[in-house]
Amino acid sequence: MTGFTGATLDRADKIRGDAAAFAAALRSPRARLLRLDGLDPAVGADGRLAWDSIAELPNAAEPILLGLDGEIPCFVGFEREAARDAPGGRGPWRALGLLPAEDAALWGAARSLLLWHARHGHCANCGTATVVHRAGWGRRCGACAAEHFPRVDPVVIMLAEHGGRVLLGRQPRFPASRYSALAGFVEPGESLEEAVARELWEEAGVRATAVRYVASQPWPFPSQLMIACVATVSGNEITLDRDELEHAIWCSEVEVRAALVGDEGAPFLPPPPYAIAHTLLTHWIGE
Amino acid sequence: MTGFTGATLDRADKIRGDAAAFAAALRSPRARLLRLDGLDPAVGADGRLAWDSIAELPNAAEPILLGLDGEIPCFVGFEREAARDAPGGRGPWRALGLLPAEDAALWGAARSLLLWHARHGHCANCGTATVVHRAGWGRRCGACAAEHFPRVDPVVIMLAEHGGRVLLGRQPRFPASRYSALAGFVEPGESLEEAVARELWEEAGVRATAVRYVASQPWPFPSQLMIACVATVSGNEITLDRDELEHAIWCSEVEVRAALVGDEGAPFLPPPPYAIAHTLLTHWIGE
Repeated sequence: MTGFTGATLDRADKIRGDAAAFAAALRSPRARLLRLDGLDPAVGADGRLAWDSIAELPNAAEPILLGLDGEIPCFVGFEREAARDAPGGRGPWRALGLLPAEDAALWGAARSLLLWHARHGHCANCGTATVVHRAGWGRRCGACAAEHFPRVDPVVIMLAEHGGRVLLGRQPRFPASRYSALAGFVEPGESLEEAVARELWEEAGVRATAVRYVASQPWPFPSQLMIACVATVSGNEITLDRDELEHAIWCSEVEVRAALVGDEGAPFLPPPPYAIAHTLLTHWIGE
Repeated sequence: MTGFTGATLDRADKIRGDAAAFAAALRSPRARLLRLDGLDPAVGADGRLAWDSIAELPNAAEPILLGLDGEIPCFVGFEREAARDAPGGRGPWRALGLLPAEDAALWGAARSLLLWHARHGHCANCGTATVVHRAGWGRRCGACAAEHFPRVDPVVIMLAEHGGRVLLGRQPRFPASRYSALAGFVEPGESLEEAVARELWEEAGVRATAVRYVASQPWPFPSQLMIACVATVSGNEITLDRDELEHAIWCSEVEVRAALVGDEGAPFLPPPPYAIAHTLLTHWIGE
């Protein structure tokens, strides 16, 4: 299972489009509200996501329906200023390390939604301020009637493979010794296989001759769909795009395995387990 | 190869971010401008996309760099009112039937970009009118400095498979006898495998136990990334969501094959060849 997957809530699409059902969910005495620390998860004493009663929803906040846990409606509250001003700082990683996968996944969905609302308070079509729509799964413009839906930006992330080795790159912002798979946004007018080939050519100057899909994950920073692939490439000569990568290396299966188990002699520090690049490397050494 | 793939232009990302290089491309005496009929393709006497000289760019239009054809910069002109008011009507299908795949793919990228600009003229963050940015591959807000990039909305499209048969559904808007694969938008906080399982449950009441990826394509109506999968499901009892589908059928390999070759006795009219549902059915009978 990839990171940020495995949420168990029923997303209850039918309630989103039914104002009476939404109101009933909000009135349910069992309805609960996700507790957050800024945008980061608040972890309870039981090591799970912490919840309050829906009665704790601040007056200024809008309830977003995350879904149903059995019969229990689960909400998160949206306040524009709070979501926009939440510190990026240290980030949610320590809290996420404590949570089971299903809780990390649910928190990820909440985070993506909150940030989308925070950054999309106006109609892209006409500029008017919009209002929350469909239980928080959209926004609507009262002036031009446009409906807007949360963005999910597809990103390809891939290992180029040649002669039994895979290509890993290092961005300047990475922690020391960290290398990972190359990645980039899918653009209008290309398949994901074409996006993989374009990114490998742009960033590393290698030519993909075949692309195979491996796995996917949502990535809530702010809202990507990561699509992980392995691409066979026609040669191992690299021409780096220095705006994107400061260094790249070809690694053998033995080297990747050493990195994943944390050997001192490993040639690089691998991506963390919740990142799909880790899944991709684990998959590749198992192939 | 899936529909709307196979474009051969170099997207020339480096030129997009370099104002001097972009100006030089625009000044090139060989630069050319995609001719459109509203938003539909204009087909030349040679059965290819028709092009004009960049000198034909109307004063009111903004040049968007589609990419380089060898040394030749290729543009499309954006005029907001023209793009918004283009008739949906009969649509581009007749013209597309005449074009080679690489031309259909290039036109698709242009269409997605033009419609995105037309519907995103204001900053979603603050409401101010935005300006074209990065050679047409973004918009920028002068007031709050937000950058906006063209949307690509990932959509899963899938065959549920049980006992050697696959599930096909019929939307009310389909032409008579047409059945196709079920589909839906990927939401924040789910992998594409989770989106497949959720859509099959919501629309048909069947439970996916395994999902395998098949292929992808860009879909320029207006800008989806279609991700095609086959899902093994645990039973064949269907509970239809009547808001989405008016009917659904389970079809054997023999029945799908008959539909794809156009047999008179086939139980359904298949999706057209440029749709990835067609690719998906062709793949499935070949498995």
